Amino acid sequence: MNTSNAVRAEILTQAVPYIKEYTGKYVVAKYGGNAMTDPQLKKSVMQDILLLQLVGVKVILVHGGGPEISAMLKKLSIESHFENGLRVTDDDTMEVVQMVLAGKVNKSLAADLSALGGKAVGLCGIDGGLIKVHQKNEKLGHVGEIDEINTKILDDLLDGGFIPVISSIGIDDDGTPYNINADTAAAKIAAALHAESMVVMSNINGVLRDKDDENSLISQMSLADAEELKKSGIIAGGMIPKVDCCTNAVKEGVKKVFIINGEIPHAILIELLTDEGLGTMFTK
Amino acid sequence: MNTSNAVRAEILTQAVPYIKEYTGKYVVAKYGGNAMTDPQLKKSVMQDILLLQLVGVKVILVHGGGPEISAMLKKLSIESHFENGLRVTDDDTMEVVQMVLAGKVNKSLAADLSALGGKAVGLCGIDGGLIKVHQKNEKLGHVGEIDEINTKILDDLLDGGFIPVISSIGIDDDGTPYNINADTAAAKIAAALHAESMVVMSNINGVLRDKDDENSLISQMSLADAEELKKSGIIAGGMIPKVDCCTNAVKEGVKKVFIINGEIPHAILIELLTDEGLGTMFTK
Amino acid sequence: MNTSNAVRAEILTQAVPYIKEYTGKYVVAKYGGNAMTDPQLKKSVMQDILLLQLVGVKVILVHGGGPEISAMLKKLSIESHFENGLRVTDDDTMEVVQMVLAGKVNKSLAADLSALGGKAVGLCGIDGGLIKVHQKNEKLGHVGEIDEINTKILDDLLDGGFIPVISSIGIDDDGTPYNINADTAAAKIAAALHAESMVVMSNINGVLRDKDDENSLISQMSLADAEELKKSGIIAGGMIPKVDCCTNAVKEGVKKVFIINGEIPHAILIELLTDEGLGTMFTK
Amino acid sequence: MNTSNAVRAEILTQAVPYIKEYTGKYVVAKYGGNAMTDPQLKKSVMQDILLLQLVGVKVILVHGGGPEISAMLKKLSIESHFENGLRVTDDDTMEVVQMVLAGKVNKSLAADLSALGGKAVGLCGIDGGLIKVHQKNEKLGHVGEIDEINTKILDDLLDGGFIPVISSIGIDDDGTPYNINADTAAAKIAAALHAESMVVMSNINGVLRDKDDENSLISQMSLADAEELKKSGIIAGGMIPKVDCCTNAVKEGVKKVFIINGEIPHAILIELLTDEGLGTMFTK
Amino acid sequence: MNTSNAVRAEILTQAVPYIKEYTGKYVVAKYGGNAMTDPQLKKSVMQDILLLQLVGVKVILVHGGGPEISAMLKKLSIESHFENGLRVTDDDTMEVVQMVLAGKVNKSLAADLSALGGKAVGLCGIDGGLIKVHQKNEKLGHVGEIDEINTKILDDLLDGGFIPVISSIGIDDDGTPYNINADTAAAKIAAALHAESMVVMSNINGVLRDKDDENSLISQMSLADAEELKKSGIIAGGMIPKVDCCTNAVKEGVKKVFIINGEIPHAILIELLTDEGLGTMFTK
Amino acid sequence: MNTSNAVRAEILTQAVPYIKEYTGKYVVAKYGGNAMTDPQLKKSVMQDILLLQLVGVKVILVHGGGPEISAMLKKLSIESHFENGLRVTDDDTMEVVQMVLAGKVNKSLAADLSALGGKAVGLCGIDGGLIKVHQKNEKLGHVGEIDEINTKILDDLLDGGFIPVISSIGIDDDGTPYNINADTAAAKIAAALHAESMVVMSNINGVLRDKDDENSLISQMSLADAEELKKSGIIAGGMIPKVDCCTNAVKEGVKKVFIINGEIPHAILIELLTDEGLGTMFTK
Repeated sequence: MNTSNAVRAEILTQAVPYIKEYTGKYVVAKYGGNAMTDPQLKKSVMQDILLLQLVGVKVILVHGGGPEISAMLKKLSIESHFENGLRVTDDDTMEVVQMVLAGKVNKSLAADLSALGGKAVGLCGIDGGLIKVHQKNEKLGHVGEIDEINTKILDDLLDGGFIPVISSIGIDDDGTPYNINADTAAAKIAAALHAESMVVMSNINGVLRDKDDENSLISQMSLADAEELKKSGIIAGGMIPKVDCCTNAVKEGVKKVFIINGEIPHAILIELLTDEGLGTMFTK
Repeated sequence: MNTSNAVRAEILTQAVPYIKEYTGKYVVAKYGGNAMTDPQLKKSVMQDILLLQLVGVKVILVHGGGPEISAMLKKLSIESHFENGLRVTDDDTMEVVQMVLAGKVNKSLAADLSALGGKAVGLCGIDGGLIKVHQKNEKLGHVGEIDEINTKILDDLLDGGFIPVISSIGIDDDGTPYNINADTAAAKIAAALHAESMVVMSNINGVLRDKDDENSLISQMSLADAEELKKSGIIAGGMIPKVDCCTNAVKEGVKKVFIINGEIPHAILIELLTDEGLGTMFTK
Repeated sequence: MNTSNAVRAEILTQAVPYIKEYTGKYVVAKYGGNAMTDPQLKKSVMQDILLLQLVGVKVILVHGGGPEISAMLKKLSIESHFENGLRVTDDDTMEVVQMVLAGKVNKSLAADLSALGGKAVGLCGIDGGLIKVHQKNEKLGHVGEIDEINTKILDDLLDGGFIPVISSIGIDDDGTPYNINADTAAAKIAAALHAESMVVMSNINGVLRDKDDENSLISQMSLADAEELKKSGIIAGGMIPKVDCCTNAVKEGVKKVFIINGEIPHAILIELLTDEGLGTMFTK
Repeated sequence: MNTSNAVRAEILTQAVPYIKEYTGKYVVAKYGGNAMTDPQLKKSVMQDILLLQLVGVKVILVHGGGPEISAMLKKLSIESHFENGLRVTDDDTMEVVQMVLAGKVNKSLAADLSALGGKAVGLCGIDGGLIKVHQKNEKLGHVGEIDEINTKILDDLLDGGFIPVISSIGIDDDGTPYNINADTAAAKIAAALHAESMVVMSNINGVLRDKDDENSLISQMSLADAEELKKSGIIAGGMIPKVDCCTNAVKEGVKKVFIINGEIPHAILIELLTDEGLGTMFTK
Repeated sequence: MNTSNAVRAEILTQAVPYIKEYTGKYVVAKYGGNAMTDPQLKKSVMQDILLLQLVGVKVILVHGGGPEISAMLKKLSIESHFENGLRVTDDDTMEVVQMVLAGKVNKSLAADLSALGGKAVGLCGIDGGLIKVHQKNEKLGHVGEIDEINTKILDDLLDGGFIPVISSIGIDDDGTPYNINADTAAAKIAAALHAESMVVMSNINGVLRDKDDENSLISQMSLADAEELKKSGIIAGGMIPKVDCCTNAVKEGVKKVFIINGEIPHAILIELLTDEGLGTMFTK
Repeated sequence: MNTSNAVRAEILTQAVPYIKEYTGKYVVAKYGGNAMTDPQLKKSVMQDILLLQLVGVKVILVHGGGPEISAMLKKLSIESHFENGLRVTDDDTMEVVQMVLAGKVNKSLAADLSALGGKAVGLCGIDGGLIKVHQKNEKLGHVGEIDEINTKILDDLLDGGFIPVISSIGIDDDGTPYNINADTAAAKIAAALHAESMVVMSNINGVLRDKDDENSLISQMSLADAEELKKSGIIAGGMIPKVDCCTNAVKEGVKKVFIINGEIPHAILIELLTDEGLGTMFTK
């Protein structure tokens, strides 16, 4: 980039009012999709996370990893089927879910942050009793429904200068692990922390009024608006659970929730630290 | 068990002087072998760890997982060969090592401790830059040699009331993960913490004067003794690196190092909190 | 005792769930009777107190000392008489009460705990304004009624790792000392601390349905039960003030109050850290 | 007193530079003699102690009580004899020493401070292992020689806003109590705290050049001076141990040690907070 | 002064109960008038402030400086006129106000306290956003009305052992400085701190029932009394805003407000630390 | 500026490694010259200071104000003359120096930072005994030589989230104020804090090899280099004291000292947070 250092300095100081808004506050980023597989995008996300931490934001990264799980199940010739969009998770499948999420994806993110000079700690919901769940439905096997988030481990790590990176796995009272939806995990964690903001990175630009028209982005939405748009059918299909997850977070105390397109480099910083609104923002 | 409660109470109070010796001190337990695969033994180890924490010991669990790694490599048809007892670890193998150790074994131990009412946090050397390494030898691939232990994450977790459970994986400055020997990892961590004691659980009773005679156990050994016994050939073969690991820990500041037989239920508690010495103790 | 160390270790781990219930909580033990004069029993109580402290219980010992006071009064030829069970306490008598309780009994207990490796601090209600009283009745002389417990000194000592040992003496606003009932002092202190439990050691097994039948022990009693049993005459005579003292503590916020037989070795540990209920437990 | 309030205010402000010298520092006052038996003098000492605490001095009161002990021994018809100025202390005598010092005198001082609005805590060397001793000489019975002062209990109490009042009783490793010289106890405590000053209240004005001439007071003395005066016989007889005690305190780190006449009202304040030097000051 | 040191010590201890009333509490002193120009009186005020700090009072000094401002305006030939008792403050005038108050008077007070051994920090309402204001009235220029007191800077300085000295200047959200009445500033600061007491030093003895009779001082006044006395015309003219300022402070949470005559040496100490009431005290 | 938000985000993340170098460290900025009089430049400096604070730098601003002092002296018809570059400062002059620096310039800077959302506290060396001096030379009047920097007030303010802004005025033990050179004040403060860096803003680009050729800038200089360049006459005239001040700071423990041209907007940020070196850097 050819930007002169004078311009760089000017840009840095222009971020000051935005930084002041978030410094000392919790921001939960749900990370997934292309942004997690494309190395360039991945690096830009990691940089964003590190900058947020450096300017005093209490930033937490939550991730899933559906495609990696599917790939590993295939390699191990374990068949998988879905019911209502939820993976039926028997013991063998759960073992793979745990290995891939908590062993491969999670620790790789921690390693990436470390390579950039950050201090990250990879956790899943088992650690410190972070995500307590119960079985959703016996037929689905190890699919959990969240009962409780124990934020102490997060605060201890954040106070110590560490960035928590969290796999979407929960644990029940008997110590049995469960697969959980990463969007939901992020939303529940953000709610438990009364986060200033949750940012959901996805492969779309946000909620579109006309799903075939990229220019029809709805840039801001209240809880009432969301209800309206669901009734009118504009929010439909797979978009419904994503929007519900965002509005639930707002209802439970998160101030601002964003759905942004993770394929845009530095989407998190653009959304949080500039005057540009990239995606859809949910507020009360 | 039919012990009367009066006897139970008497036994509890008799443990007081032993507890006082360790309360507030670091104890690092290297966990592996049968004690990790037999469910009964596993439970007894987890109970020991929890009791130690409850009476104020700063207890840290370090584990490897060779057999599980081999099993998973086999399932995935990844061939593995060894050089001088070290697994040649290419990228694919390292991914499996990481998944199995940090994803499966590590989180299962955290889950087991949680089921018994403990609060454990599963880490590997990547987290918080805990174990910094460099490549041992290009031919061995991802086999690391430890440069530095960063204990801050351990102290933060212990202060928060969490039990750190650590997989033997390290990270270099570029964020690349490495396989490391679990005995060595435990010894280096114990040394960095100036631990009161390190307990190495193995499948043998300790160092035997005559390896075919269970009754020839050497119950205590100074650094000088160990040197002598190596020269005289009594410590030989696979026992050499294990003993070296113990004596190195002592040299670097650990007060007492024990090799104990993990197949004895509650071996850790018997060794630390009773007047019985089970295995071999190394001291200066 | 011939118990093997394996059994010892097993017993230790079985105490874990009981320990977890009390760790970090306040337990007030009212100490007296034979348990205070028999050297063997005394040692077993001191061991119990030390173990409780070691496993993180905030333990406080409260004691009286009627027989020792009477003996010293006799030696000094000071006559003593009682009204409604209360010792009429003139200036000379009070001086002896203070010397015997705060000088002899109290410091001996602190010394005993010290000999076992504990750090105890002997106090009476004068110290740090711990027990503020007013004169109950002019005719009784230095007999006090408790107005206020100032727990700061207790928390400061407990935080410093010290076990407070407290003589049942109070002080009024003019600095005059008063004799107070030790059961009441313990109950008021437990109430002021919102203790998890108060244990009253006495010479009986607890409340008996038939006072001549040791097997008629009432092992648990609610506030309503106690009221009922008093009406029906089952709780009668000298048992009434003892039971009132226990029920008052429960009313004022102590979760569980026990009357146990101090002649049973390790009665406190058996009651608190095993599945056996020795005496009578009072709860809401 | 007829002093106008204007003069009072002026006097208060004139104390400022003296107060500044001691605020935040340790001052140990050895209390005894007439100042402890005359009620008027006693009150003036208690007021001095309270004022020192109020202006931020970390003040500690150490006391003996020979005459009270003798009186009680007499009442109990226990005969007492001395060897080289030390009371031969058998078990019965020790019990009386402990009762009188730790039960009567000590708690009365705490009560007096309480009546004036202070918060005092009465301790002896048994409490918190404050004064560890060994037996001086088998023939003397419970006469102890100080090995170690454990100041933690003092700092915990001072930090909590309490004034420690300490009886001159020590404890050995077996929990046996011992009688110790109060001057020595005060000096050892002052030394262990690296006190700014120790004030020894006695019945004399200080060290006199001519013991029959009150005007021959030596107002300041270095360690070398003291050595000289002992050689020349000016310091002689019972004055030798008192002076040795003061010079030892100076040698072990106390900055200034004063022998003052406790019969002068407010002698402590006059010595520490005015420009007048009452007694003899020992410095390096 | 010829007072003997014995009397001095007696006087010091007699101040103890008064000191106890204020130690650890906030006291705000409004300083002005002759007490600020007469060097002798100034020194006595500075001594009073230092003693209060030394005995643990959280003391804060607030000052104005009308005469010095007028003198400097005259030297610079800047004309000044008043409307309803308020100085019309254009930009040039404000610059002089700021220079004289925050540069000259304020720092001189800090220097005086420093010369006496104190540690003072000179502030105005601009520093740390201490006094936030808005413009009272466009015609008056830089005359501000207080919106908010941000006490964090005061607590940080007091915790650090510093005495805050505050010029009566405020700041609006745009960073523009404003002149404010010093009595009002002191009252608002005292209210924000829920001060134990505010002392207003003036050139009169307090509120007089007959303004020409010095002996008609009203020594105590409730809020109701003040209302009554205003209605009856006894409080009239320039006394009205001064009394309103005092009663407002009481209404907003200050426990005791005093108007005292600053021309009496050590008036603050006499009022706060003796049994003499010099001026008029306002309470609820 | 037309920079896209994507570029802005990229630039922000590129600053991360530079920010990491300074976060948690002390940076002292000496501010003066055109940068202090030109409103645009002033704003850019204030923005730089705020950004540094926001990213965790402990930033301190030190300023002089020669031209403003001269202007005010002229308005007040006070004549001023210099000896060896030092203003002869009689009492009247000192009063003006204090008013202009500590009253006008200092508080205006605090107000400017406040308007941008910062929390600044304006101090001079009088406050908290920050800069202790003695008179340099009787003939020069109030010209001080620095003896001691008391950094406690700075750490207290920085810990509280405040930016200290410091006028170059010192105080002697008698409370007399003195004029001091601002470069020297900044250097002494930086040295006392063992600052990571001191930045001296001036009207030149740095040290030039040929003072008439802007392109002859010497971008880095060791202590030895500086000595050499002074000998060879390349550093000469008015540049000598400025360079001495920088090298003294380095000698006394400041890691990096920069002379930069304050007329370049955001010169501080460009120097500290980009890969561009603007001026001359002094290191060991």
